[in-house]
Amino acid sequence: MSPIVAVIAPGMMGSAVAKRLTSCGAEVRTMLSGRSAATIARARSAGMVDATSAQIADADFILSIVPPGQAVALAESLAPALRSATRKPIYVDCNAINPATVRTIDSIVRETGAIFVDGGIIGPPPEPDSTKTRIYLSGPDALKVTVLEQYGLSMPVQAGPIGAASAMKMSYAGITKGFTALGATMMLAATRAGTADALVAEMKVSQPALLKWLTTQMPKMPSKAYRWVAEMEEIAGFVGADQTGAGFYESAARLFDRVAEDFGGQNTKTAALDAFCEKAK
Amino acid sequence: MSPIVAVIAPGMMGSAVAKRLTSCGAEVRTMLSGRSAATIARARSAGMVDATSAQIADADFILSIVPPGQAVALAESLAPALRSATRKPIYVDCNAINPATVRTIDSIVRETGAIFVDGGIIGPPPEPDSTKTRIYLSGPDALKVTVLEQYGLSMPVQAGPIGAASAMKMSYAGITKGFTALGATMMLAATRAGTADALVAEMKVSQPALLKWLTTQMPKMPSKAYRWVAEMEEIAGFVGADQTGAGFYESAARLFDRVAEDFGGQNTKTAALDAFCEKAK
Repeated sequence: MSPIVAVIAPGMMGSAVAKRLTSCGAEVRTMLSGRSAATIARARSAGMVDATSAQIADADFILSIVPPGQAVALAESLAPALRSATRKPIYVDCNAINPATVRTIDSIVRETGAIFVDGGIIGPPPEPDSTKTRIYLSGPDALKVTVLEQYGLSMPVQAGPIGAASAMKMSYAGITKGFTALGATMMLAATRAGTADALVAEMKVSQPALLKWLTTQMPKMPSKAYRWVAEMEEIAGFVGADQTGAGFYESAARLFDRVAEDFGGQNTKTAALDAFCEKAK
Repeated sequence: MSPIVAVIAPGMMGSAVAKRLTSCGAEVRTMLSGRSAATIARARSAGMVDATSAQIADADFILSIVPPGQAVALAESLAPALRSATRKPIYVDCNAINPATVRTIDSIVRETGAIFVDGGIIGPPPEPDSTKTRIYLSGPDALKVTVLEQYGLSMPVQAGPIGAASAMKMSYAGITKGFTALGATMMLAATRAGTADALVAEMKVSQPALLKWLTTQMPKMPSKAYRWVAEMEEIAGFVGADQTGAGFYESAARLFDRVAEDFGGQNTKTAALDAFCEKAK
């Protein structure tokens, strides 16, 4: 029998995950109350069906795929329904959040009698036949979620407790998105100083791999920057024991915040980044 | 007739630059008063000869190659001799310093009647037949320095005023050394969280270029970290108009400071970084 999976919310990532599941025969529920027409259309096109909290809690799996700042609130809002459910689901938090935040959610979910598994998504919204997206899982019940690999998802189980999958996601994003933030800072500084051409020319010779990576990734960043702000703040929390590292990611959060504002407005930073990347072609 | 070049100081970079010059027939002067036996031996082996301030000021070129925090002080200490010199040299500041600091040095030097050129070194201490090291030059008199290309140095002239060559150096080092700082932060955080193996495995698949770069560069970092602290502070000044960016490089300065302390002492961070890099092999 095919599993029933609740995927909340139907954002870009959530609806893409849902579409993989429904196209492989799973039933996917979500919550559409109060959502925009565009989100509702995206959810429908992914084959997701609207459901009440009770119907969400009655699923076999709940995948939480929300902006990082909403992960705890979602668990809290579902807790009463989970507590009332006679057949408890497995709740998988797939968000880009600090392991400490994951453990808070674990407590909220476990108190309801449901099972909790930690998850971390690496890669873009999944597409058919693509191997680029993996949902890492960790915790004592992680293996129970891997049945979803038969429904179009790649779900490697990682060694370690609840929090390990999120720690991996934090450190991976800390390198890739952190480098993007730092690269943007320097592209903008070099442009302001009138040295962008010389920098590109030198990097073509002595740092071709870094130049190629940065100028390939950068054009995709401004439209996503608003989503990365809270993720950088989670990473700052993740490296919190290391004051130095926290400073990096607090700076990265502010950078993405400013680029997001620019992207929705004046577009001067976005244009400067695009112009830099063009030089590298 | 071969040029007379003063190279101050005879550190790793300065003595390597001097050795290229002397092996191509230039006379190279330096100041050895108060230096350690090891430094004096390195200078001698590079063919450098000890000189007074007056003899330094009587050279055709003065190359300032000192730790970033000493660049202004060197210009100030040489100013009286430069003022007294009847034949004025060309003073080239080759240090990793903020263009604003370069302009301060330009004022000090110009006031003595000497000519000032901005420089920025990209690459390791130069070796015979290697094309890895370039001393970028900028400013109205930059072309006058390129005669030294006949004496074993690669000296591309960059468009732009005094400060342009240093701006290029700042933005290049901001990317390469900034990424090294950020990579070290995340390698250490992943190691503390027990997710280093999983991170390496994922990056081998999805970020091979960044993994290779980081794990090739990182083992060379701890022994050099102490020299990078002031350079990161200069870069923080360079991006100073951009508060976000300054936060990055102030954090990077503190990271390198802590790694340098570790490298000279407990070696726990250094060992953790080495262990991470080993996994990637």
